Amino acid sequence: MKKFIDSPSTLLATSLQGFARAHADIVHLHTQPCFICRNERKQGKVAVISGGGSGHEPLHAGFVGYGMLDAACPGQIFTSPTPDQMLAAAEAVEGSGGVLFIVKNYAGDVMNFEMAAEMLDKPNASVLVDDDVSLPKTHDIGRRGVAGTTIVEKIVGAAAEAGYDLAACKALGERVVAATASMGVALTSCTVPALGKPTFTLADDEMEMGVGIHGERGRQTSRLLGATAIVEQLADQVLDELKPASGQAVLLHINGFGGTPLVELHLMYELAWQYCQQHGLEVRRSLVGSFTTSLDMAGCSLTLTLLDDELLSLWDAPVNTAALRWGC
Amino acid sequence: MKKFIDSPSTLLATSLQGFARAHADIVHLHTQPCFICRNERKQGKVAVISGGGSGHEPLHAGFVGYGMLDAACPGQIFTSPTPDQMLAAAEAVEGSGGVLFIVKNYAGDVMNFEMAAEMLDKPNASVLVDDDVSLPKTHDIGRRGVAGTTIVEKIVGAAAEAGYDLAACKALGERVVAATASMGVALTSCTVPALGKPTFTLADDEMEMGVGIHGERGRQTSRLLGATAIVEQLADQVLDELKPASGQAVLLHINGFGGTPLVELHLMYELAWQYCQQHGLEVRRSLVGSFTTSLDMAGCSLTLTLLDDELLSLWDAPVNTAALRWGC
Repeated sequence: MKKFIDSPSTLLATSLQGFARAHADIVHLHTQPCFICRNERKQGKVAVISGGGSGHEPLHAGFVGYGMLDAACPGQIFTSPTPDQMLAAAEAVEGSGGVLFIVKNYAGDVMNFEMAAEMLDKPNASVLVDDDVSLPKTHDIGRRGVAGTTIVEKIVGAAAEAGYDLAACKALGERVVAATASMGVALTSCTVPALGKPTFTLADDEMEMGVGIHGERGRQTSRLLGATAIVEQLADQVLDELKPASGQAVLLHINGFGGTPLVELHLMYELAWQYCQQHGLEVRRSLVGSFTTSLDMAGCSLTLTLLDDELLSLWDAPVNTAALRWGC
Repeated sequence: MKKFIDSPSTLLATSLQGFARAHADIVHLHTQPCFICRNERKQGKVAVISGGGSGHEPLHAGFVGYGMLDAACPGQIFTSPTPDQMLAAAEAVEGSGGVLFIVKNYAGDVMNFEMAAEMLDKPNASVLVDDDVSLPKTHDIGRRGVAGTTIVEKIVGAAAEAGYDLAACKALGERVVAATASMGVALTSCTVPALGKPTFTLADDEMEMGVGIHGERGRQTSRLLGATAIVEQLADQVLDELKPASGQAVLLHINGFGGTPLVELHLMYELAWQYCQQHGLEVRRSLVGSFTTSLDMAGCSLTLTLLDDELLSLWDAPVNTAALRWGC
């Protein structure tokens, strides 16, 4: 296993400590139970909390800060956090406005966030993110939450900061989820530290279309195509889901999975932008970089969110987190 | 070759177009000759220009913007830009304060920036960055410029924005270079697109200490060690160079080479922070992420800069670029 690591059992705790220390101006780390918490919070606002298995950094801890999340609960690598983490985080950051949980659609996450919500003695609600269109809507546990999560957390976080109440934050979050679709492709698998070897293998001339963010196989192993052809496959699937009107304003997000460098992500972005042009979409906002990763997987995903004036203005609102920062 | 690419001959131009488009609020792209240029510049300030071979993104184009660079000249992958690029960039952004070129110490870059400086009919000066301590000072072409370049560009860029004149910017840059040392380690080589295969190979239980940022072999191939032992080797070498006094304030930068995910970089940061504590150094500022990359290489480098009040305040000054953004 080619990783910077002392032991799989200490990797996460040490890494989180480093994260919190490097960003001590914005966040701090609670242990037992473990969560990352914003240093400064406005009384009365809705507390926005997310979390999930680790290995997707900077998601979610990198999004804790002004204008985005109030707390994030990291589970072990690719493993849901536990309800006691979510409960403790909620009690720490709730400021009389109630708590909104943003939950990626995985069975463990959904179950544990539901348990925390039941135990929490404060008004609360949840938004389920299921933006991955590589699985059919009829899939038995539904679609996975992937890179669109960043967009949901940014827009809902801005709304909470602006004073939206709990019901309005929940309704907005569900509106963003409905307006967002993602599709990913992998060039390599990833190596889970405790396993010590790649989860699956691909030949040198193969790629895996329709992957999620947990090193699982995707929808189809196929021959490695050129970048333009890959973008077309990803974007076709996304457009088939969103069915945007001609002239629709969109946010285009190219997300790297951890092992793909920026020079390739900006290439994919340009090709995706050209695709959008050809399909009559107006790219009004962009996000390019590795935000929802799958450890060291080489690959990327393409996400579109249909924008209206409200979503655009909330996307543009100031944010000050480790991973997203503007206007502050 | 497992990359998102249509052809090695179009990768860079398309990627740069994507970069400029995704960050059109901050920069624009000039072609023929090629450079990335800031949208808004203050008249009278020193124009700060850098550049070098591509494949190190976000360096340098990602550092163009308020408080950092005025322009960046990207060469082909791992190949120096040409003097006509630097000359055109300088003429485009010079605003009566003269031009400071920040040059990483590679023979081609040095030669081409010198030619541009000679051709430029405006006051100009250069700062040479040679922070890589894996080579001895007596090496025939001197030491390489690596991840410390980010720190030099941030601090000098802030000084230019604050009104330092050309001589003061040059002197400051040289002071930052003298206060900065870096050492890197690779777990894999990288694949140059035109070559199509890794530049060198390492066995599963090997690492390469003392690598630069061009996929070249390093000082020594050795057995892959645990993260703590790797940090010790890197930091020992850096401290041996800088010889800081006890209690010295430092900036600690853990830089990823492109294929190493954040979870590992934050682990390395925490271990490096603990090392600094044990060696009586006070880590006052931190930077963790992939800023000076080597395409898809898995690996990282450790950089320390000795801080004083002036450097600290210039580091903290507002910056608004694609890759570094705070206070704006």
